[in-house]
Amino acid sequence: MKINTIPTLEDIEAVHERIRPFIHKTPVLHATSIDDLAGCEIYFKCENLQRIGAFKARGGLNAVLSLPIEALQKGITTHSSGNHAQAIALAAKVVATQAYIVMPNNAPSIKKRGVEVLGGQIIECENNLEAREAGVNQVIEQTGATFIHPFDNYDVIAGQATAAKELIEEIGDFDIVFAPVGGGGLLSGTALITHYLLPDAEVWAGEPEGAADAIRSFETGKIEKAPYINTIADGLLTNLSERTLEIIRKHVKGILTVSDEEIIQAMRLVYERLKIVIEPSSAVPLAALLKNKNRFLGKKVGIIFSGGNVDLSKLPFTAPQN
Amino acid sequence: MKINTIPTLEDIEAVHERIRPFIHKTPVLHATSIDDLAGCEIYFKCENLQRIGAFKARGGLNAVLSLPIEALQKGITTHSSGNHAQAIALAAKVVATQAYIVMPNNAPSIKKRGVEVLGGQIIECENNLEAREAGVNQVIEQTGATFIHPFDNYDVIAGQATAAKELIEEIGDFDIVFAPVGGGGLLSGTALITHYLLPDAEVWAGEPEGAADAIRSFETGKIEKAPYINTIADGLLTNLSERTLEIIRKHVKGILTVSDEEIIQAMRLVYERLKIVIEPSSAVPLAALLKNKNRFLGKKVGIIFSGGNVDLSKLPFTAPQN
Repeated sequence: MKINTIPTLEDIEAVHERIRPFIHKTPVLHATSIDDLAGCEIYFKCENLQRIGAFKARGGLNAVLSLPIEALQKGITTHSSGNHAQAIALAAKVVATQAYIVMPNNAPSIKKRGVEVLGGQIIECENNLEAREAGVNQVIEQTGATFIHPFDNYDVIAGQATAAKELIEEIGDFDIVFAPVGGGGLLSGTALITHYLLPDAEVWAGEPEGAADAIRSFETGKIEKAPYINTIADGLLTNLSERTLEIIRKHVKGILTVSDEEIIQAMRLVYERLKIVIEPSSAVPLAALLKNKNRFLGKKVGIIFSGGNVDLSKLPFTAPQN
Repeated sequence: MKINTIPTLEDIEAVHERIRPFIHKTPVLHATSIDDLAGCEIYFKCENLQRIGAFKARGGLNAVLSLPIEALQKGITTHSSGNHAQAIALAAKVVATQAYIVMPNNAPSIKKRGVEVLGGQIIECENNLEAREAGVNQVIEQTGATFIHPFDNYDVIAGQATAAKELIEEIGDFDIVFAPVGGGGLLSGTALITHYLLPDAEVWAGEPEGAADAIRSFETGKIEKAPYINTIADGLLTNLSERTLEIIRKHVKGILTVSDEEIIQAMRLVYERLKIVIEPSSAVPLAALLKNKNRFLGKKVGIIFSGGNVDLSKLPFTAPQN
């Protein structure tokens, strides 16, 4: 059952039932020492501990499980340099079909290995959108596989919404729910379910200064490009799509940008205090919150950690801290 | 109520009730990809996510909560370069008394900060046992504070036993329970409670080759020194004590040693697959298991991750892995 309009609460509930057997109900962590620093009460939804190490498992699984059997038999394809690639490979494995993943030749090796371990077939291409789309089109011509977009797809958006759904169901009332924004799949899903379950809560997003397209699109109402691209948060480089922009404009209160230095500081805080591994993109909302403390003083805040697929040999913690 | 002989099951149950309000019931994690590598089914008890980032919170809290009020009023003291220092500072904070922590002047800054944040007073000394003991004796003379040994203390041992108790209660039958061994507090507590709850299970320990004293003591029955000290697992440098050696000789099946390279490989696996931050000492049992796969094939294994207090600027993952 594909979803063809903005997902309703009933849609998201049905999606959650559909994917529940295949995903982890990830833990929610909390650290008094971070609360003290931030001046508010923060609960972290650990999608870094999700299967494939990222929330993308939710949307990918739902999109694939929503396909008719005839389509499934021909395989699934997507282009992705990151976590969506592994999500589609996982989903294909679950339904016992083939995933064809078009990946830029400079994608991190940990993400390529992740796809291969799950049985996905990698087709390498140049690192630009045209080459990626050409790669996918060739796969479709040769195999008849179905393309699953990483975020401009209501089945994917409804799947991503289930992370915040679990967080709200476990912890209860929030004043604020915070997510990072790249293409906007996680943010639009988070905004929708928060609107349905906690209509008085505000949804905020964090975005890297070095990929600040969403904040401009949010203002102008059109899909904008970032003035420049240069950030450690490699999961957040993508522009919004029509579908995600519409939901975000309707249900998100604001987008706050942060520098890479602020992202790294927040990331370090999470490693030190929560003792978990997150990728830089995950640290963006906490960085945005810490940068704008006064706005959130005394609030009860939920933050979605989007993923933990980081290249361990490139962690940005080399400077001595004595 | 101090425990003056080897803790019984009833002792450990009472200790668990006493410390329960002040500790986290830490999560148990599991990763199919690690099972596939190891050829067995492994459940990881995440004491890196315990308060102060280590199991030592359990024993320290119990030892302090067992003291009479007159002793508590004069404060508590210990010498420690590591997690026991923070455990005692936390316990002192809980009972609203002063902790005097004698620490070697080269202790990692993260561990010093941890003590200070909890209100502990640090007394620096040279990095040798004589200087540490002299420091503690001076504190005792001046303040009348009570000394809490990091492991040669049945109240501490009974506290450490509660980590494996929670693991067994949550997951059920194990064939094997694995812990690291330094001074033997965690290992002897783990061995006792496993003996009481799962009399047919085997308890194994992992020890660094570069601090291989316990394996020798285990063989000779006397407190032995390591042939040499040189390991990344800085939490496991201590020798056993009479109390821990007696329990370990009685209830531990075997001790397996591993090289630093094997420790780092296992540590990397945990960061990559479980997405959590552990200190090198925590990785020692998994390294020992992976090195001796055939011994544990098909078994159901519980592993205690002892802690996550690692200096992030010195993580050993700098080599490229392509």
